[in-house]
Amino acid sequence: MHREALIEPRQEILRTAARLFQQQGYDATSMNDVAAALKLSKGGLYHHFQSKDEILLHIMSHALDITEQRVINVVRRVEGGPEERLRTLIRLHIEVVLSEEDREITVMLHENHPLPPVSRRKINGRKKDYVHFVENLIADVQRQRGSPSTVSPRAAAFALVGMINWIYQWYKPDGELTGDAIARQFTEIFFRGAIG
Amino acid sequence: MHREALIEPRQEILRTAARLFQQQGYDATSMNDVAAALKLSKGGLYHHFQSKDEILLHIMSHALDITEQRVINVVRRVEGGPEERLRTLIRLHIEVVLSEEDREITVMLHENHPLPPVSRRKINGRKKDYVHFVENLIADVQRQRGSPSTVSPRAAAFALVGMINWIYQWYKPDGELTGDAIARQFTEIFFRGAIG
Repeated sequence: MHREALIEPRQEILRTAARLFQQQGYDATSMNDVAAALKLSKGGLYHHFQSKDEILLHIMSHALDITEQRVINVVRRVEGGPEERLRTLIRLHIEVVLSEEDREITVMLHENHPLPPVSRRKINGRKKDYVHFVENLIADVQRQRGSPSTVSPRAAAFALVGMINWIYQWYKPDGELTGDAIARQFTEIFFRGAIG
Repeated sequence: MHREALIEPRQEILRTAARLFQQQGYDATSMNDVAAALKLSKGGLYHHFQSKDEILLHIMSHALDITEQRVINVVRRVEGGPEERLRTLIRLHIEVVLSEEDREITVMLHENHPLPPVSRRKINGRKKDYVHFVENLIADVQRQRGSPSTVSPRAAAFALVGMINWIYQWYKPDGELTGDAIARQFTEIFFRGAIG
């Protein structure tokens, strides 16, 4: 039985494809597998995406959209100065990494899948934009606080993004470390360590 | 023309296979591709490894052996107390991540490749052992220094391992941040941030 009407068809396709790519590998997953998992006909799937490469690119773009909407755009609107914005960024970025709904999408950003060169450059450019945003915010906080730190905003940004993006490698929803505990302790490590 | 005598055959096979897996994807790489890249006959390759799964498992084990030999075993022999051991661990772990010779092998540890359950448990167990080693060392340093930090050794260990293992995602050998600069700044962030 085929079902041709998904509620948010493109997002559902991306989420299901991301799950299959992780469970059975990107190459081992066919467009047929994706269609079958969604109870779509192959035509129904091709109506939205022409190829697996296109799905992969859209998964990665969608992961970056999520970061933009739920982290950057919110942080920009925070009133109260750079320190408050940086604390908010750490908390929201951790929330995105831990989001059960989006984890399968966002994890794909970090895996090394062979994208065509043009797409790869586009995705890598957006990843770099995020690091620059974090770097500039750290520089603002250091300046405002008259920080004595000899850590450069750039090295600090890579350390912060690394410790947060790495969480998906070890986090267990039923483990000892809750999302709140991680956010509190990572914020403390980072503020004491890189701002001082 | 086939060449049946590699100098360190198993290590050369693992390194070449790891490179191919990253360039063209694990599933898209066949045993034939691995043999061809090494100028080995298929029989020559099968003499060492029976399957691609076996190669993948050995790549991961080898990456963990490298960490054990070049980080843990050296750190255990450092004289001068836990603080000196922790500083050494940070420096050596960064060196392993940056090692040009081993990068293709060690990166495989972090990618999500479908291993058979028994192998996966074995690899995950050894990864956890490493985090525990780091965690215990951090606890020793906090105790010895009478650290006022409210960061738990466990959260601190995940933060440290995350920021170091993430380096492969952004590091450029010809970039501004050299290995030494990374080691100095990450050590400062971590010691000020998690020990205090």
